[in-house]
Amino acid sequence: MTLTLLIVSRQAKEYRAFFEAARLPELSFSDEPTSEVDILFGEPDRIRSALPSVPALRWAQSNWAGVEPLLEPDVRRDYILTNAQGVFGKLMAEFVFTYILAYERKLIERFQAQSSLKWDDRRTGSPRRKTLGLLGVGSIGMEIARTAKFFEMHVKGLTRKNENCPYVDEYYHGKPEITGLATNTDYLVSVLPATNITRRIIDKNVLAALPTHALFFNVGRGSAVDESALIDALRQKKLAGAILDVFDREPLPAGHPFWKTPNLTLTFHTAAPSLVEDIGALFIENYQLFRAGQPVKYQVDFERGY
Amino acid sequence: MTLTLLIVSRQAKEYRAFFEAARLPELSFSDEPTSEVDILFGEPDRIRSALPSVPALRWAQSNWAGVEPLLEPDVRRDYILTNAQGVFGKLMAEFVFTYILAYERKLIERFQAQSSLKWDDRRTGSPRRKTLGLLGVGSIGMEIARTAKFFEMHVKGLTRKNENCPYVDEYYHGKPEITGLATNTDYLVSVLPATNITRRIIDKNVLAALPTHALFFNVGRGSAVDESALIDALRQKKLAGAILDVFDREPLPAGHPFWKTPNLTLTFHTAAPSLVEDIGALFIENYQLFRAGQPVKYQVDFERGY
Repeated sequence: MTLTLLIVSRQAKEYRAFFEAARLPELSFSDEPTSEVDILFGEPDRIRSALPSVPALRWAQSNWAGVEPLLEPDVRRDYILTNAQGVFGKLMAEFVFTYILAYERKLIERFQAQSSLKWDDRRTGSPRRKTLGLLGVGSIGMEIARTAKFFEMHVKGLTRKNENCPYVDEYYHGKPEITGLATNTDYLVSVLPATNITRRIIDKNVLAALPTHALFFNVGRGSAVDESALIDALRQKKLAGAILDVFDREPLPAGHPFWKTPNLTLTFHTAAPSLVEDIGALFIENYQLFRAGQPVKYQVDFERGY
Repeated sequence: MTLTLLIVSRQAKEYRAFFEAARLPELSFSDEPTSEVDILFGEPDRIRSALPSVPALRWAQSNWAGVEPLLEPDVRRDYILTNAQGVFGKLMAEFVFTYILAYERKLIERFQAQSSLKWDDRRTGSPRRKTLGLLGVGSIGMEIARTAKFFEMHVKGLTRKNENCPYVDEYYHGKPEITGLATNTDYLVSVLPATNITRRIIDKNVLAALPTHALFFNVGRGSAVDESALIDALRQKKLAGAILDVFDREPLPAGHPFWKTPNLTLTFHTAAPSLVEDIGALFIENYQLFRAGQPVKYQVDFERGY
């Protein structure tokens, strides 16, 4: 039995080439939404737009982790929805270490020295023997911790109960212990999701506990950070810098004070992109399971929302 | 028996604090060169200046790898000379991956976008699945290869005979095969020393073989690169960029064309600094061996020169 796939993605061309190269058995491609389409693949907003025109849909694979547009109450749920998981941890770790290494190596300062035709051989540092504090030790936190251990760092982790990460040297528990975790931490990294408990959990006290040479990273959700406390702390040099990938509103509105806060680096929600090779491989794996009538990976529970 | 140490270093204070904290048995510190001094520690040029004033010298530990000032023909050789080794590979690897990750992440471009108040969420890349080509697979090359494998890259290595590096996937041999190595290599990294064989070995043909998106790194010695071929290749966009840490003359003279070659990054010979913690630990290890009358690590053969 042939299955018909419609790709609804901003990178439709690249995904199509990737799937064609894989020569998936009994798969045909459709160029538009029709009653022939069995499978949708792409971004959740585009999947949602296509839903009314693909009545025979049996399975949709999102190439993002977040599938909010497909969870709204009046949207049909008579198909299997899978999202992208298990591919973002390594990218997040690469992101965090890009900026840790660039800071240790004074990359921006040396770039500016070269532009001014100045020989700048100021001493360089190393992450080795320094301490990384991780707020959240799930699958993404674990990849960051694994990379920190590769670079011979000491790793502290904030957790509610999971103490099974082989790359965390020392655990702290819940909100009351965050300030203790921040003390003597060179790099504080939040991968916290947006929940009632995490809301503004990184506040004035946590930031004040960091050493003045520390960097703070937010790669989780914007709501975990008290924005004005962070701006104050950076202005008062309570920490050396912050790298923010996520914000309450994206793109960050013009005129937002973050644009001009000293030592604040904005990375525009690029930390963990959906790469064609990663998500394409996930689709191929799931396609083979689906075709064999076996359970697919990362099926979303519409009620639970993930 | 007490041994007397004189520290002759630009970072004498930091080293002194490090050694004092280690409470080395039967070690006393001298503040100036006298006939009491048994041990010198510091940069080779400063060791050389102190030599005439420390007649009882038995051992000198250089905190650099290169000890050229102590190898000149008329300089005394009646003491044990040890140099710094085994500590630079990790720093070199951190250096190379600082710039690989910054390139994949478009760090400079995003920094400039932020300065212009622009939201820049252009797609980011990853070293994963890309190819690193290593010219030289000794102890430093091995650390770079090990880091490349951590980031799930494919590693090619140029070697004369050693094929024992567990992190190299594919070997190439000698000058005739460099062009083949460069083909389809995303990141070409030279750790080659200055010898007659390596002189200008990275020439026009090697650079032309690289893909146009490739980066070239020189962290070995400046003489391995044909400078004008590199400038031409960068001007003609035969490769995307080069990162040079070492030069025929340092500091790079004002007016040298490298200062203004497009897509050329200068890092001012900062790739692998002598860190107090690294070299201090090496001295402590050697002190304990020396005191016990055992062979010290990394003794320099004055005739051979390393």
